[in-house]
Amino acid sequence: MNVEFINPFIEATMNVLTTMAMLNPQAGKPVLKTSDKPNGDLTGVIGLVGEQVTGSMAIVLPSKCATTIASNMLGEEFTEVNDVVVDCVGELTNMITGGAKAKLGEMGYRFEMAIPSMIRGKKHVVYHKTKGPVVCIPFDLDGSEFYVEACFNATE
Amino acid sequence: MNVEFINPFIEATMNVLTTMAMLNPQAGKPVLKTSDKPNGDLTGVIGLVGEQVTGSMAIVLPSKCATTIASNMLGEEFTEVNDVVVDCVGELTNMITGGAKAKLGEMGYRFEMAIPSMIRGKKHVVYHKTKGPVVCIPFDLDGSEFYVEACFNATE
Repeated sequence: MNVEFINPFIEATMNVLTTMAMLNPQAGKPVLKTSDKPNGDLTGVIGLVGEQVTGSMAIVLPSKCATTIASNMLGEEFTEVNDVVVDCVGELTNMITGGAKAKLGEMGYRFEMAIPSMIRGKKHVVYHKTKGPVVCIPFDLDGSEFYVEACFNATE
Repeated sequence: MNVEFINPFIEATMNVLTTMAMLNPQAGKPVLKTSDKPNGDLTGVIGLVGEQVTGSMAIVLPSKCATTIASNMLGEEFTEVNDVVVDCVGELTNMITGGAKAKLGEMGYRFEMAIPSMIRGKKHVVYHKTKGPVVCIPFDLDGSEFYVEACFNATE
């Protein structure tokens, strides 16, 4: 894993949210995830499989961010997480990962995407089974924080 | 997706738990997942990527099943979910999927495995972003139920 792989995820997240949801979150400082933080109420997670690397990416959202993003993406107001919001976060997971995929490919992180799984439940924490570092990028959206987490393993 | 892909997951789950944890869960009747059930306190989820199919597999456990399995696999008593139990469920996810992979390959479901992600949080629900069916297999372990969920999409 190389820290240079962080920027494509930041750019893809910003790009998807500005163009698809007319939202302008502020990316914070990426950190290496070393504890059981952060937590979220709705997560989209997707597996990444390539010849040289495998990995996973997750977007971890508090309910408020999830409903705000879904409301803006779908043009309908959601005040709580329901099946439509869950599905929308799955689509968001696909779009962010897809957006990062092309740039990462140029950098040697070539991979295909599995299908997203979404997890709904108050204050859950996501862990990634890797011996390498997990990067966690915080994004501020109108005073609430959501997180994009990613990691890559070199395949054996 | 074909329902015939269910048996390799049942066999792999039984095989891993009997040989690695000396446990003998009882597989129940597989159902198509259509609602926001079941829930769990600790989940291992993994993405699957092949040329013909993509998919995901999850093992969804109540705390009691997770600690029982980890205690038996690691020969150390765990009474609550901690980082070691979380990691053990990641390994369990790898082993079950790996066990199912060979048989599924013979049936035309050839895929590579991403790395597992684990989710910890009381009573969360897992969703899979697929247009096809999601199969959920219940397993009874000493009166508590855990679940193996899997789905495949044909790639476009």
